[in-house]
Amino acid sequence: MVDTWSSYMQQALSLALQGPRSLNPQVGCVIVDTQGIVVGTGFHQGAGTAHAEVDALASAGDLARGATAVVTLEPCRHTGRTGPCTESLIQAGIVRVVYAQSDPTKDASGGAGVLREAGVEVISSVCAKEAQEINKAWTHVQRTGRPYVILKIAQTLDGRVADESGGPTSITGPAAQLLTHQLRAQSDAVLVGTATAVIDNPALTVRLIDVTQQPIRVVMGERELPPELKVFDDQAPTMLLRERRPRAALALLGEAGITQVFLEGGPTLASAFLEAGLVDEVVWFLAPRLFGAGPISLGPLAAPVRLDVEQIQLIGNDVMVRGRIARTDEKQR
Amino acid sequence: MVDTWSSYMQQALSLALQGPRSLNPQVGCVIVDTQGIVVGTGFHQGAGTAHAEVDALASAGDLARGATAVVTLEPCRHTGRTGPCTESLIQAGIVRVVYAQSDPTKDASGGAGVLREAGVEVISSVCAKEAQEINKAWTHVQRTGRPYVILKIAQTLDGRVADESGGPTSITGPAAQLLTHQLRAQSDAVLVGTATAVIDNPALTVRLIDVTQQPIRVVMGERELPPELKVFDDQAPTMLLRERRPRAALALLGEAGITQVFLEGGPTLASAFLEAGLVDEVVWFLAPRLFGAGPISLGPLAAPVRLDVEQIQLIGNDVMVRGRIARTDEKQR
Repeated sequence: MVDTWSSYMQQALSLALQGPRSLNPQVGCVIVDTQGIVVGTGFHQGAGTAHAEVDALASAGDLARGATAVVTLEPCRHTGRTGPCTESLIQAGIVRVVYAQSDPTKDASGGAGVLREAGVEVISSVCAKEAQEINKAWTHVQRTGRPYVILKIAQTLDGRVADESGGPTSITGPAAQLLTHQLRAQSDAVLVGTATAVIDNPALTVRLIDVTQQPIRVVMGERELPPELKVFDDQAPTMLLRERRPRAALALLGEAGITQVFLEGGPTLASAFLEAGLVDEVVWFLAPRLFGAGPISLGPLAAPVRLDVEQIQLIGNDVMVRGRIARTDEKQR
Repeated sequence: MVDTWSSYMQQALSLALQGPRSLNPQVGCVIVDTQGIVVGTGFHQGAGTAHAEVDALASAGDLARGATAVVTLEPCRHTGRTGPCTESLIQAGIVRVVYAQSDPTKDASGGAGVLREAGVEVISSVCAKEAQEINKAWTHVQRTGRPYVILKIAQTLDGRVADESGGPTSITGPAAQLLTHQLRAQSDAVLVGTATAVIDNPALTVRLIDVTQQPIRVVMGERELPPELKVFDDQAPTMLLRERRPRAALALLGEAGITQVFLEGGPTLASAFLEAGLVDEVVWFLAPRLFGAGPISLGPLAAPVRLDVEQIQLIGNDVMVRGRIARTDEKQR
């Protein structure tokens, strides 16, 4: 049964990605009639607009009667800025709902149960992993109440983030820098400490690819910042957090509606977030260079941290290691 | 023309690998008649025995007349412990010789010219890269007069080779350790400094795979070594070099007939060899762990070193980066 629906789910996933990344999840939906013909498509276009299911039902019209709705997220059963999708599906005469990711929110979850009670057949977890990947940060916020944090490190193979002079050096090559800008663009906020802002004086903007909106630049810490720093230019908004504690800083960012934080700070900030258990994913760039001297990528940790490596790839001449913090070690802390 | 012969060359390369790794190169040869049928095969079985071509000619007998010899190394034209192969090929009536790697030695090279003068057609450089890879260390010795050096490093992502205590720690997992033993087995010598021998007390033997002969263990430096160290057990021969200079140490090892050295020393020895421009290849294991403290994999270098990355691979849970020292940086030194 799952295989029957996964190609339709792939269409729904593609539709989901057409929606904007925002505080709301990206969701796509296709309506499939009894002949297997797609009679309606829809996606969620951002907070306050119609959910994907409602959008798809509208495009299907009367053809939705007796049809199947294939949707990337479990239909909601709550009334927020829009009505519950379960109700819309039932009223449109949908007889079967196939969904990928279960709704992780407190208010909206339980949609599958509502549908079943109304006599609608429900098939869940079709392409669930892909759907979760699309809304990784949003899902994380629903589960933990705090933004999803990606730590980026760029170092030489021997662990150095700068040469002996300690000044700003470009460690990685153009391809790794392009990927860094893509990761910035996918995030709501780019975070550094005051030390990095002063010493490296980075702009922290997305420049190597086109974006409609720059992520917000966040500088946290207690050091005084000279007004001529690049983070104070008019290329993107900047937020100053007079806060050194990672958990408190993330709480403030979460309140400001930030879902994904891209951490580009120095060794001290990286260690502080790791030690607090607040890094969800790491993107570790290793330039094929040996410095033999200079500052190390990571400051002291109270206990070792272990990663689950999910991807290794040569990006230009640099090695990228991407992974998540292993939960086993998080328990040990 | 090249494509016609490369499948026969692949057979010759497979035959070459059946010979022993030793001071002599591994060479394979197939004799192909005018119908394209393989009528003889041979490989070099070690110093003092028949060369691959002679071995193959013997198996072909009279069928060699009018045939083609496909051989992984340019036939020698010198009389060493055996006669010149060029002469044997000509006398057997071979009309065409196809070879992969040119002979890099002073005494034996020029075979192609001798054959052409005798009216034999010669086609060179068929699968040359694969043939060179088989005799990488031997070719290196012929060109430079010193052993081929592979530096192995095993560190955490943040560059640490031990935790804060500084004592011996197993940084990498079982798969990386198995590969380490394979690399030891492919080498003639495993080299560490006296500091590593005393502090880590490694056995340096091949234990995780079966070998007919253990590589020699070499400890270099001036520190006194307690006789109860593992390197003094009876599991493999051990050589002590009262020498701290990498170039002088390699010269001694070359004189002892060692072709490939596997460098497993600590940060100081690694830096000394890199700084002297005497590392040919690096195998860098990165465990997916962050220590935040402890000794760094590499001591000071007078100038940065750049690598040409040739391979990245996940070995168990560890990332392996394999590459060669970039020649551009060697010039800069």
